[in-house]
Amino acid sequence: MLIAIGDAIRRTRATRNISQEALADLAGIDRSYMGGIERGEHNVAVINLSKIAEALEVRPSTLLAAAGI
Amino acid sequence: MLIAIGDAIRRTRATRNISQEALADLAGIDRSYMGGIERGEHNVAVINLSKIAEALEVRPSTLLAAAGI
Repeated sequence: MLIAIGDAIRRTRATRNISQEALADLAGIDRSYMGGIERGEHNVAVINLSKIAEALEVRPSTLLAAAGI
Repeated sequence: MLIAIGDAIRRTRATRNISQEALADLAGIDRSYMGGIERGEHNVAVINLSKIAEALEVRPSTLLAAAGI
């Protein structure tokens, strides 16, 4: 599941043409932590999920749906 | 946001006619922690969100959408 969420974030980020570092900065999340989230290494909590979704201009529920959950 | 998620979990639980304690047990989450989640006191992570959603027989994305996020 965490990998699917990381993939969904990466795919959505790609559609926005922004780098992982830019997404981390936009979302106010540490760049290396952001990398771990995209690799599915972190059990991301809803506040961070919401910051990432906002930076990607999608809803958190949309991100989870894109991850198939 | 956390309060909205807690409310969405409580409303969904009510439609299933199960107690907070039963939901906690079904989801494999500590009962007092579950109470805190429903009160919006915990920044719930996606693995716990997924366990709760599965216990409620909905998708995690559906729970977040029900919370308006």
